[in-house]
Amino acid sequence: MIDLRSDTVTKPSPAMLDAMRHANVGDDVYGEDPTVIELQEKAANLFGKEAGLFCTSGTMTNQIAINCFTSPLEEVICDEGAHVYYYEGGGIAFNSAASVRTLPGIRGVFTAKQVRDNINKDDIHHPTTSLVVIENTANRGGGHCWELGQLETISKVCKENNLKLHLDGARIFNAIIAKGYSASEIGHYFDGISICLSKGLGTPIGSVLLGTKEFIHKAKRVRKVMGGGWRQAGYLAAAGIYALDFHVERLAEDHKRAKVLEDVLKPHPLVKEVLPIETNIVIFELVDHISEVEFISKMKEHGVLCASPGKKRVRFVTHLDFTDEMLEKTVEVLKKIK
Amino acid sequence: MIDLRSDTVTKPSPAMLDAMRHANVGDDVYGEDPTVIELQEKAANLFGKEAGLFCTSGTMTNQIAINCFTSPLEEVICDEGAHVYYYEGGGIAFNSAASVRTLPGIRGVFTAKQVRDNINKDDIHHPTTSLVVIENTANRGGGHCWELGQLETISKVCKENNLKLHLDGARIFNAIIAKGYSASEIGHYFDGISICLSKGLGTPIGSVLLGTKEFIHKAKRVRKVMGGGWRQAGYLAAAGIYALDFHVERLAEDHKRAKVLEDVLKPHPLVKEVLPIETNIVIFELVDHISEVEFISKMKEHGVLCASPGKKRVRFVTHLDFTDEMLEKTVEVLKKIK
Amino acid sequence: MIDLRSDTVTKPSPAMLDAMRHANVGDDVYGEDPTVIELQEKAANLFGKEAGLFCTSGTMTNQIAINCFTSPLEEVICDEGAHVYYYEGGGIAFNSAASVRTLPGIRGVFTAKQVRDNINKDDIHHPTTSLVVIENTANRGGGHCWELGQLETISKVCKENNLKLHLDGARIFNAIIAKGYSASEIGHYFDGISICLSKGLGTPIGSVLLGTKEFIHKAKRVRKVMGGGWRQAGYLAAAGIYALDFHVERLAEDHKRAKVLEDVLKPHPLVKEVLPIETNIVIFELVDHISEVEFISKMKEHGVLCASPGKKRVRFVTHLDFTDEMLEKTVEVLKKIK
Amino acid sequence: MIDLRSDTVTKPSPAMLDAMRHANVGDDVYGEDPTVIELQEKAANLFGKEAGLFCTSGTMTNQIAINCFTSPLEEVICDEGAHVYYYEGGGIAFNSAASVRTLPGIRGVFTAKQVRDNINKDDIHHPTTSLVVIENTANRGGGHCWELGQLETISKVCKENNLKLHLDGARIFNAIIAKGYSASEIGHYFDGISICLSKGLGTPIGSVLLGTKEFIHKAKRVRKVMGGGWRQAGYLAAAGIYALDFHVERLAEDHKRAKVLEDVLKPHPLVKEVLPIETNIVIFELVDHISEVEFISKMKEHGVLCASPGKKRVRFVTHLDFTDEMLEKTVEVLKKIK
Repeated sequence: MIDLRSDTVTKPSPAMLDAMRHANVGDDVYGEDPTVIELQEKAANLFGKEAGLFCTSGTMTNQIAINCFTSPLEEVICDEGAHVYYYEGGGIAFNSAASVRTLPGIRGVFTAKQVRDNINKDDIHHPTTSLVVIENTANRGGGHCWELGQLETISKVCKENNLKLHLDGARIFNAIIAKGYSASEIGHYFDGISICLSKGLGTPIGSVLLGTKEFIHKAKRVRKVMGGGWRQAGYLAAAGIYALDFHVERLAEDHKRAKVLEDVLKPHPLVKEVLPIETNIVIFELVDHISEVEFISKMKEHGVLCASPGKKRVRFVTHLDFTDEMLEKTVEVLKKIK
Repeated sequence: MIDLRSDTVTKPSPAMLDAMRHANVGDDVYGEDPTVIELQEKAANLFGKEAGLFCTSGTMTNQIAINCFTSPLEEVICDEGAHVYYYEGGGIAFNSAASVRTLPGIRGVFTAKQVRDNINKDDIHHPTTSLVVIENTANRGGGHCWELGQLETISKVCKENNLKLHLDGARIFNAIIAKGYSASEIGHYFDGISICLSKGLGTPIGSVLLGTKEFIHKAKRVRKVMGGGWRQAGYLAAAGIYALDFHVERLAEDHKRAKVLEDVLKPHPLVKEVLPIETNIVIFELVDHISEVEFISKMKEHGVLCASPGKKRVRFVTHLDFTDEMLEKTVEVLKKIK
Repeated sequence: MIDLRSDTVTKPSPAMLDAMRHANVGDDVYGEDPTVIELQEKAANLFGKEAGLFCTSGTMTNQIAINCFTSPLEEVICDEGAHVYYYEGGGIAFNSAASVRTLPGIRGVFTAKQVRDNINKDDIHHPTTSLVVIENTANRGGGHCWELGQLETISKVCKENNLKLHLDGARIFNAIIAKGYSASEIGHYFDGISICLSKGLGTPIGSVLLGTKEFIHKAKRVRKVMGGGWRQAGYLAAAGIYALDFHVERLAEDHKRAKVLEDVLKPHPLVKEVLPIETNIVIFELVDHISEVEFISKMKEHGVLCASPGKKRVRFVTHLDFTDEMLEKTVEVLKKIK
Repeated sequence: MIDLRSDTVTKPSPAMLDAMRHANVGDDVYGEDPTVIELQEKAANLFGKEAGLFCTSGTMTNQIAINCFTSPLEEVICDEGAHVYYYEGGGIAFNSAASVRTLPGIRGVFTAKQVRDNINKDDIHHPTTSLVVIENTANRGGGHCWELGQLETISKVCKENNLKLHLDGARIFNAIIAKGYSASEIGHYFDGISICLSKGLGTPIGSVLLGTKEFIHKAKRVRKVMGGGWRQAGYLAAAGIYALDFHVERLAEDHKRAKVLEDVLKPHPLVKEVLPIETNIVIFELVDHISEVEFISKMKEHGVLCASPGKKRVRFVTHLDFTDEMLEKTVEVLKKIK
């Protein structure tokens, strides 16, 4: 089976498994796992942040950040398709009792003006706006990247209005590779950053939350109460270190393969429209006479798994375990179905 | 001063004050206040519901209903301008840890299709949709009323999908008077109903929550923990009974006065557009060269208070204490300012 | 019926009703009710505090204070029988997501050492201790009063450890009358104070929360989201002002009557032990062969209502509507039953 | 360094590491990791339960269970030293908005009568009692085990009163080995069971939650929103399977070594009292002239790490990586210090 449902499905290479096997570990609840410490420092340095916290998932790092940056009776601003709002099970209300103001962005990217217009004035009828969350690349936007200038203007509005700014960087390395900006160039715009190691980077488990020492100190407390404190996590952290060393640059290949798929999909008789491809996510809309369920089922019959991000929409995600041979095969399948 | 900021500013008439003064009271925490019991039964009967609960405010009755009809990890569907979402301080997250899906309705009214399209499928990434809230009349929609047919189709979708349906009836009597449907005709569409006695009906304090006995039993518990249990509330309930007897039909006068204001506003040089007037709320948008702050300040200089429901927008609300003389005076003032 | 279940059952006197009827009112959500403002200032001045907030109930003022003084992941210290923990429906968890450490006090009074020993050290396994709540008089302690020196030492421990101190003053005027200290003498020990107007003071509804301007500013926001914002509350506030003027000194009579009951109960064949009487609450334990349900039922047969605060325990509360004649009658009844 | 601070500090053996390295994995968010599935089934079968859920930590499995078994406005009964209350950061309030009633047990074990006496009657002043949590062995009770008969009577009270019963089985295998009952013998008493793989069983990370299919279905949703959904968790699950196969019986050795420590501690001049040793936890109280900080520091100077579970108390925990040689060394150190 070729699996294009998500870039989370990858399995570690033998080299990554070796790194895991030989990791030097300790009890991370006591802060004594040297490999976890190394990963946290490595990731923090990369983005120009003081400290890091290695966690089970991107949902956990995002939810912890939201909890640290808000109080009950406060409000988070994000895109209406943002992972933190759309895919995290209602976690903003559940974990933080915070309200959400969703913005209708363009493929997941909203403007500084939209943020400014949605900051509540000081009035007891409204929750106090305190946090903006940016997702880069925007998953539901088809892997759309934020421009450096957009990050800068949003960051400015946040500072002027005393709002915190959090980056959901589930696929931030895809954006970095695609746009050519560096981690440290964008890091300073944000108060909190969540980076994921188990999507494009190909590790089995884990995300890292980055920010100031004080923020990470508080984050540890929140992680513990959410059940995210773990013990000899160094085995997983070792995979993360390996991924940061060897799996970032190669994301360009995933992007190239996604472009090849775009070329086949654009003129495809079952496809009405393909969202512009910038990174490793390919989202397209189907023509009227076929549903997403039917399309996915046809692809599966031919050995290719894909997913749907919504009605009439299909999503392919290219990744570390999706090879050129699989690409060829997928292109053939696409040409076959109609 | 003429006060058009809201219909909440009214003061009881001498007759209502007499009713209050002579109320027979008891300790309502023990369920022993006869006047509270009478009000609750009267309101419940009116809407064809089993039981009622007299509370401090419409925010309280709404928030209690939302708490009873949802659990954490569930989601409420409402209009993006709904009072429960927009004006209750983020209470849905604060009181119930529930998530919110806002719909872009037309002046506060959304469709059954919009509801159906926004019910989450059973997937751990999404909160479980469990409640729809309708606001009738829709405050931010300019006092817009729901048609009976619209209530019916939404109610049907809710039943089919195992969702509860709550009516925020802050101004439901304005809708009843304007549309000509009866309380019992609409009551059966809803699982919970909140009616407000301190807006158009002119009592000093209070709203009543209506529903099944089982629901009201649970609601009492929630009211208590929110601090809403009160003692000799019969003095306030007496005002409510008086209002239901004598202040419902007269809402037609408020509506007539609002129409007069519309006639003056439509051709007014400072007004770009007036939302269609159906009840007692008049919302209009200003032309480019004047802000809502300036307009409100000009009106105040001439002795008329009004409010703004958003940028470039001004709101007048007619009510029990807004007489024909005041209407004339307001019209004069409007003609003066430019 | 003679009602000794609680001091909440009193009804306003004609003079209080007159004060209510002639109150000057406004919309308190806009902060425009002059009588509410007057009450808030009067109560704040009395206790030497900057500001006040008039609310529906003591549960509401307590729960608002706890919400303002804690954040989720923090812990409240109180007596194991404290009203905020025992009688407010689990509100500390519900409204504030805060943890509770209960102390086994002596009739509701705990020591500074107990507080100090229960402050959690900075460790992610424990919530951060941030608030201590004192109830004076202690309801479940049989109306037991705190000594000035006890308040002082607890206050000192709180200041040294950066904890807030809140007074649940549901019956603080009973303590003031019984112990002879003044409101301002104890007020400065506390960051927040809740005083109740509807118990011994005999108003139909209401409590006032006191503290700094900043605290009350935040409290208004919390009150709103809990549904406690109300409109022309001046009618109720007027009763409060009347009560502060005319119903404080007379609490001494309630205390005297409670002592008379004590004298009858101590040697009573059905009574094992009477908690020392200091104010208006009389709690006694029954001998082995009679249950609290039987005792209460016997009293009711003879026209006296009383309540049980726990297994084998009965509670009488004297109050404004419990006259000398009723006292005599109650004493007769007590002598009759065996 | 000899590390007796906790049994969480163990590191996997080469054989366990081999099992991890060769695990067959998949994406567990999609429910496709075969090794995770195998572990969950194996653990569920062992305790006679329908289904299992592999999670990051015992705090997570406990907090998920509490969330599934309670609603806001409900109350949990547990021992005053229970891990779920004492060591999980206030998680019951944070994650579930539930209240807690703590019982003063004997070394962590309470009686059916205590439970019965603390079930709240149906009264809006009290949260609804809905869950009892038992910790076996009781950590703060010095590794004290529950007798089968005690579990049975508590279970009966729960069933009679419609309460759920959850087992915090952080060290349940120590109890099983010490008491001689089987997993399935105790499993049927409980609605939810949390078993820990990273304490005595020696895996790097993980706990398993057990219960009915319906319960585990809901638990998955809660795990997701808490950020506990993970991807290729099979590497960790493989360690768990290995531990269940090879590390249960050997717990007897840890218990034996703990007894040896007891023999040295009992007559020790710095020790006032040793809690009876039943499993792998050794808790003792120091004599007056030495603090726990001093004692721990002395031990550390001699190469032995230990911890304090409270004032004047020291804790040793024996485990997989604590060998006979280390035991000898520890005994020597104990004999040296005074």
